[in-house]
Amino acid sequence: MYHIGVDLGGTNIAAGIVDSTGKILAKKSVLFVMRHNHEELAEDIVNLCKDLAVETSISLEIISSIGIGVPGVVSPKNGMVMLAGNLGVEDMPISHLVGQVLKIPVFIENDANCAALAEATFGAASGSRNSITITLGTGVGGGIIIDGKIYSGAFFGAGEMHQVIRGGGVLCQCGRQGCWEAYASAGGLVRELRQLGVTDKTTAKDIFDAAHSGDILAQQAVDAYTENLCIGLGNLVNILQPEICVIGGGISGQGQGFIDSIKNRMPRMVLGVNRDTKYAIAALGNDAGIIGAAMLGISSE
Amino acid sequence: MYHIGVDLGGTNIAAGIVDSTGKILAKKSVLFVMRHNHEELAEDIVNLCKDLAVETSISLEIISSIGIGVPGVVSPKNGMVMLAGNLGVEDMPISHLVGQVLKIPVFIENDANCAALAEATFGAASGSRNSITITLGTGVGGGIIIDGKIYSGAFFGAGEMHQVIRGGGVLCQCGRQGCWEAYASAGGLVRELRQLGVTDKTTAKDIFDAAHSGDILAQQAVDAYTENLCIGLGNLVNILQPEICVIGGGISGQGQGFIDSIKNRMPRMVLGVNRDTKYAIAALGNDAGIIGAAMLGISSE
Repeated sequence: MYHIGVDLGGTNIAAGIVDSTGKILAKKSVLFVMRHNHEELAEDIVNLCKDLAVETSISLEIISSIGIGVPGVVSPKNGMVMLAGNLGVEDMPISHLVGQVLKIPVFIENDANCAALAEATFGAASGSRNSITITLGTGVGGGIIIDGKIYSGAFFGAGEMHQVIRGGGVLCQCGRQGCWEAYASAGGLVRELRQLGVTDKTTAKDIFDAAHSGDILAQQAVDAYTENLCIGLGNLVNILQPEICVIGGGISGQGQGFIDSIKNRMPRMVLGVNRDTKYAIAALGNDAGIIGAAMLGISSE
Repeated sequence: MYHIGVDLGGTNIAAGIVDSTGKILAKKSVLFVMRHNHEELAEDIVNLCKDLAVETSISLEIISSIGIGVPGVVSPKNGMVMLAGNLGVEDMPISHLVGQVLKIPVFIENDANCAALAEATFGAASGSRNSITITLGTGVGGGIIIDGKIYSGAFFGAGEMHQVIRGGGVLCQCGRQGCWEAYASAGGLVRELRQLGVTDKTTAKDIFDAAHSGDILAQQAVDAYTENLCIGLGNLVNILQPEICVIGGGISGQGQGFIDSIKNRMPRMVLGVNRDTKYAIAALGNDAGIIGAAMLGISSE
């Protein structure tokens, strides 16, 4: 049997047909369009699934489940998107709306949780029971896997990595001063360099590239950025003691040098008992969302 | 059947006979004595259990398990105390040493985890599946309960609440600058007042008492203390989203006014999705350690 994973984002809706080993057989995406009502958004998802089936000649009849990863707060139990600000969606019975048309069971989860589940099962954390996957990009996202399953807290909102690491410091979009996201996101790196008087580099990639090319100020900014990143990682490891922390998102594309500088800092950031936790770059890239969403149905079998 | 819970501390070893509803039928404690070898410490525990049985006329034959809460890193699976600095103990096969004499199954856990388990089952968090219990005293301890069970991480060291909340700030005994324990422990409160120029109050209780009596500087110190306490609590709630946070330890004795000032601050400290988490003072006091240790055997039945 096959499964469809849908990665619902504020830019694109991507979907893939995934087998039970986590392999994507085919994928397709369409632009996300802000819709007037829930039925229209559900229709976009339904049409994407149908098109995917037609293009791959895999009949929807042999698709045993559809999983949808949503950038927001969801209630997996009720199949409801409670709040997804970037999609302009609130209280949407997404599982019901998609499922009633396609006649296939629909499962939903937060998108960062989907990525964490995919990395924990088929990616950089495969073989582990307890892991954390952190996504470094425009924001800082995360998912916690405990005993092989997504830990979603008491009200489906756990794993929001908004933690204050510098009380009284930089204001985060979450409203708290000194929050990790304000330091460990791409914007945090750009700000570090701006504070050194350099304003012509406005993306994380530009700054990492300059640092690799020997630009001293860019190197200082990357150092300050990595230090703050590791302070927050250290907090997470001291609290949760996962077997492995996976670093994903755009910034993780900096590769081995970046993960090495994280590994070098971490023994200083955590208690002695927590020094066995490992660190690795995400292995599944942008596919993690699709694979993790597809797994929602696989793991419920 | 009855269970014995042992709360092994650096000052006292306390033990109690506990029934399956969490009620302590009798308890007894002896001074902790630093011993030369593991056998002697195990003998102290064995003798305490025997004395307790004699004094209560409850035969050890109807004790179905013994649980031991240890202030340190333990391996519950192997029955080993890996490191308990305050007891001067390392790599001690405590379950084997106690169990071979008493011929009763012995279970061990970290002591803060025992307290969290007791509060989650019979105390302030009873009825919840996911909770955190924080112990505020000389240090800041904690235990995480997920799905009714102790969450102990990948290597039995989770729930160490050493998290940096003020990077570059006050040095903690853990070696990290700006760590929560340096602010939210009793010493953190004393330091807040000292920074205001007051040096004649050297215990948390003195300072809370003075604040209650209208001492403006003591009130300022309590305010600063509570703010930092709540920053760290907010981080934990954003990451773990428990149903309830239980506040225990000596400082929790400040009662309703203290918990009210925590509750007032928390909505500002957490994301909107995490505002349903509740806060309560620990209900079991010093007995939590004994009850939680006794439960290790109950929950394994």
